[in-house]
Amino acid sequence: MSKPKHHIFVCTQNRPPQHPRGSCAAKDSMAVLQAFWAELQKRQAYEQVGVTYSGCLGPCEHGPNVLIYPEGVLYNGVAPADVEEIFTSHIENGQPVKRLLAAESVW
Amino acid sequence: MSKPKHHIFVCTQNRPPQHPRGSCAAKDSMAVLQAFWAELQKRQAYEQVGVTYSGCLGPCEHGPNVLIYPEGVLYNGVAPADVEEIFTSHIENGQPVKRLLAAESVW
Repeated sequence: MSKPKHHIFVCTQNRPPQHPRGSCAAKDSMAVLQAFWAELQKRQAYEQVGVTYSGCLGPCEHGPNVLIYPEGVLYNGVAPADVEEIFTSHIENGQPVKRLLAAESVW
Repeated sequence: MSKPKHHIFVCTQNRPPQHPRGSCAAKDSMAVLQAFWAELQKRQAYEQVGVTYSGCLGPCEHGPNVLIYPEGVLYNGVAPADVEEIFTSHIENGQPVKRLLAAESVW
């Protein structure tokens, strides 16, 4: 990966089932990660976009969490079905997907 | 974690010992991650700095790799002994540590 224009981090933190914080992995964030990788491949956007999994990004209760740099936009509650919209609206057209944005109290 | 001023990603990707790409984990990047977390605690910089582990950042042969956003600075070959300098020079004084910067051909 050369320096990407947008770098998408998908939290895949896991925790035991009884853990009070829960985790993004327990909310199937691996499927979100795979959807991002599939979309990256579909669009052949490897030179412009990086997709990387990450450890905990903080607001576990609102996961799956997806963080995009350098703009520093955090999305909460992302599902595989949201990935195409994030690519088209945010990555291609520079318009973050408002309905998924983390609240100011969170990020 | 609220939105950090600097977000440090430490690659902790692992691969089998015989894998041709090697991995940052095989070069003890977990110790680098722990050094960043310890320095974060020492400086009580939780409001300004995020430290998160990540999957592969690309140039495995030059690892351990550390990527800092939003500035998009990639460091190669980071050792635990480099962490204090990265905090003091880069994070506190805005001067990236030149000797550790990834080459332009890499990033």
